[in-house]
Amino acid sequence: MSERPTASVLVTGSELLTGHVADANGPFVARALADLGFAVRRVLLVGDRPDDLRSALEFVAGDDLVVTSGGLGPTADDLTAEIVAEFCAAPMAVDTELRGRIHAKVAGWATRAGWAGPALDAATEKQSRVPHGACVLEPVGTAPGLVVTRPGGPIVVVLPGPPRELTGMWPAVLVAEPVAELLATAPRAEPILLRFAGLPESEIAATLREVEQKLDLSRVEVITCLRRSELEVDLHPLPGAAELAGELADRVVRAHRRKLISDDGRTTDELLAGALLEKGWTVATGESCTGGLLAGRLVDRAGSSAYVAGGVVAYSDEAKTALLDVPAALIAEHGAVSPQVARALADGARARFGADVGVGITGVAGPDGGTEAKPVGYVCFCVTTADGEVVARDPQLPGGRADVRERSVDLAMHLLLRVTGRTGPGAHR
Amino acid sequence: MSERPTASVLVTGSELLTGHVADANGPFVARALADLGFAVRRVLLVGDRPDDLRSALEFVAGDDLVVTSGGLGPTADDLTAEIVAEFCAAPMAVDTELRGRIHAKVAGWATRAGWAGPALDAATEKQSRVPHGACVLEPVGTAPGLVVTRPGGPIVVVLPGPPRELTGMWPAVLVAEPVAELLATAPRAEPILLRFAGLPESEIAATLREVEQKLDLSRVEVITCLRRSELEVDLHPLPGAAELAGELADRVVRAHRRKLISDDGRTTDELLAGALLEKGWTVATGESCTGGLLAGRLVDRAGSSAYVAGGVVAYSDEAKTALLDVPAALIAEHGAVSPQVARALADGARARFGADVGVGITGVAGPDGGTEAKPVGYVCFCVTTADGEVVARDPQLPGGRADVRERSVDLAMHLLLRVTGRTGPGAHR
Repeated sequence: MSERPTASVLVTGSELLTGHVADANGPFVARALADLGFAVRRVLLVGDRPDDLRSALEFVAGDDLVVTSGGLGPTADDLTAEIVAEFCAAPMAVDTELRGRIHAKVAGWATRAGWAGPALDAATEKQSRVPHGACVLEPVGTAPGLVVTRPGGPIVVVLPGPPRELTGMWPAVLVAEPVAELLATAPRAEPILLRFAGLPESEIAATLREVEQKLDLSRVEVITCLRRSELEVDLHPLPGAAELAGELADRVVRAHRRKLISDDGRTTDELLAGALLEKGWTVATGESCTGGLLAGRLVDRAGSSAYVAGGVVAYSDEAKTALLDVPAALIAEHGAVSPQVARALADGARARFGADVGVGITGVAGPDGGTEAKPVGYVCFCVTTADGEVVARDPQLPGGRADVRERSVDLAMHLLLRVTGRTGPGAHR
Repeated sequence: MSERPTASVLVTGSELLTGHVADANGPFVARALADLGFAVRRVLLVGDRPDDLRSALEFVAGDDLVVTSGGLGPTADDLTAEIVAEFCAAPMAVDTELRGRIHAKVAGWATRAGWAGPALDAATEKQSRVPHGACVLEPVGTAPGLVVTRPGGPIVVVLPGPPRELTGMWPAVLVAEPVAELLATAPRAEPILLRFAGLPESEIAATLREVEQKLDLSRVEVITCLRRSELEVDLHPLPGAAELAGELADRVVRAHRRKLISDDGRTTDELLAGALLEKGWTVATGESCTGGLLAGRLVDRAGSSAYVAGGVVAYSDEAKTALLDVPAALIAEHGAVSPQVARALADGARARFGADVGVGITGVAGPDGGTEAKPVGYVCFCVTTADGEVVARDPQLPGGRADVRERSVDLAMHLLLRVTGRTGPGAHR
C-alpha cells in the first residue's frame, strides 16, 4: 500500500488524554487525506507537553505529509508553532502584516468586551510569530495556519484546534504551494462507498471470501465499518485498480441488494431529504421513547423546513391523547408501547401538523420499565402516509438506553426512506 | 509530570484512518487510566498493517503501561495478539481450555445460524492462541483479552475493539496481577473538575496568570477545555499537591463564581435533573430552530420521564398556533423569531403538557433565513414557570447551523438550571 504518498495526523490537547473530549479533527483530516489519495498511516493524540509533541513529530518524520491540529492559541502553553519550527529548523519571527490583520480582526469585539489592552496585544503578537519560510494560512478565528517543510522531511501543515476553524481553513491547505505540489503526485483516489442497512459484518466477510476465489483483491483495500444499524463498505483501489474495485462493488451489491442504501456514499439523511423534496412531502413525528431525537435528526440539514412539518414528544399517556389524539382506550387496551399506539402516534402527528407522512415511535428504552412481554429494547414503529400506505415494525433492539434510542432513530429513518420508494431492488445501479 | 506511572493507548482499525468512524475506545481507556493516577502520554490510532502496529508499539515502549484495542477478531487480518507476543518475546500457543470455553460460547448460535463447521473451528482455534505467560481475560464476545509483560518494558494489555466488549472487560483488567501490582504504585489521582458556563478561555488564562504570582503551580496540571458554551477546568495535582490544587480551585471559583456550574465535576444535565426532581417539577418544550434537540437532551437520562412532560417541535407558524396556542397576530406583529413568540412558545408548551416549567426557543439557525435585523445566529429563549417566573434571553450566537443549534440547547439548559435556583452566587461552595 506504499504506492500512495503517506500522511499522519497529529492532534494536540491534554484534554483529549483525560478522555473529557472526543477528538473530531483527527477523523476529519484523515478522511479528507484518504479521499485525496494519501495512505493515512496513523492519527496521534498527544498532550500539550513540548517533549511529547517533539517525539510525536520524530515518530511521523518518515511520512510525506504531517497535519497537526491545536496548540495555536494565544497562551504560553500553546506551543505547536514553535515546536514545528524547531522540527523544520526554521527560526520564528513576527509577521508584522499578519499581526495587523489579526489585530484588525479582534480589535472590535475586544474593545466592546473590555478586553483591549496589553494582554490582548501580547496575545496578538504571539499568534503572529511564524517560522521563517512558512506559508501562512489566513486565520478563521485568530490563529493563522502554517505550512512548513522540513528539509529532506515531511511537509508539516499546522492547523488550529477548534473544529470550525480547522475545517474552515482546509480549502486553503489544499492550494498552499507545497501541499498542491505533493497532491499533484498523488494518484487520484477513486474509493467506492457502499452503505447497507441491517446487514451483519459477517455476511459481508463471507461475500468477500467468495469473491476472492474469482478476483485478485490484493490491490483493493476493503474497510468495513458498522455504525449502529448501518454497515459501510469502503473500497480503496490502489492506482490502476479502479476497474477491479468497480467489479468487486458490483458483486457485493448484487449479493446484498435488498439491504443496500446507496452505492455512491450518499447517506440515509441525504437520500431521505432528496426523496421528500422530490415528492413535495412533509413529515411529522410523534415520539415517545426517542424523545425528540428523530425530529432533531430530520431538521439537522439546512433547508429541512421544506419537508419537516414538526413533531411532538409525548412521554405521558395524557400528552399522547391531548396532543396527538391517541385514544385513551387504545392505550388502556394495548399499552402505551404497542404497534397500535405507534400507528395512532403516526396518524395523530400527520393530522395535527397537516403533513403527508407521519412517524410514530413508542418503546422501552430502559434501563427500567421492561416487562417479560415488552422488555427493554422493544420498540414499535409506524410510518403512515396520506395515500394510506402503512409501514410498521416492532423489533427487539440490542444495547443500553442510548443504543436503543439511536438505533430507533436509524430504523425510523430507514422506514421513512422506504415509504418514499427510494430503497429496494431496482432503486440502485 | 513523570512522578506518575505513564501509559499510552494504541487503537487499531483501518476504518479509523479513513475517518469513517470516531474512536470511542481511546477516550474511554484514557479517562479510566487518568482517573487511576496514570500520566496518559498519547493515544495512537493505527491501521491493521503489521508494520504500523510494530512501530507504534516501539514508539510507546518507554511507558509503564500500554493498552491496545482491536485486531482480535477471528479473521487473518486480526493480528494484534501475534504482534504483541512478538513485541514481548513470548511464543504463541493454543490455550486448549480457553478454546473449549470459546467453543461452548459460540456453538449454540453458530449452529442455529448455520455457521457451525470447519470455518468456525478455525476461528475458535485462532482466538484461543495466546502468548506464553500471558494472563488471559475471559471473553465478553468471542475474543479473550490478554495481559503480557515485555521483559524490561511495559505491561501490555490487549483488548477487543467492540466498545461493549472492551468496557465489559475493563474491570478484569484492573485485577489482573501485573496491572494490579502497577496500580498499587500509582498515587491516587485527586483531580478537581470545575465547570463554567459562558466564560471565555482567555479569562481563565488571565486568572491563572494572576494566581501564579502567589502560588507555585508547577505541581498542578491545569487542563482547560471549551466545549461550545461550557468551559471545563480540570486540575490534576501531582502526588502531595492535592491541597495546592484545592486552593487553586478556590481562587478560580472566587474569581468567576457567577459563571460557575459545578465544582465537583457534575454536569449541567445531572444538576438540572437533580434540581427538577428535588422540586418535583416537570418541563415541557416548545422548539422551533432547535427542532427537538432540547427535548432529546432532556430525555437523555434514565428516569427522565419523572421530570419531562413532553415537547412540541413547531417549525411552521401554523404549527406554533395550532399546537402551542401562539396567537397568529403575535407572530404577524413581531415575527416568528422574536422574544414575544419565544415567551408564547414557553407558555403554550407549559399549558398544553400541564407542566411546571415551559421553555420556548425560536431563532435563525441558518444558513438561510437571516435578515439584517435578525441575522443567522439570532435566537430567542424564554423559560416560564407556573409560579410566574420568566427568564428570557435573545443572544446572537456564533458559528454555523450545527453550532447555533447546539449552543442554543446548551443555553436553554443553563436557563432551566437558573429557574430551578441551582446556580449563581451562594449555590456553590
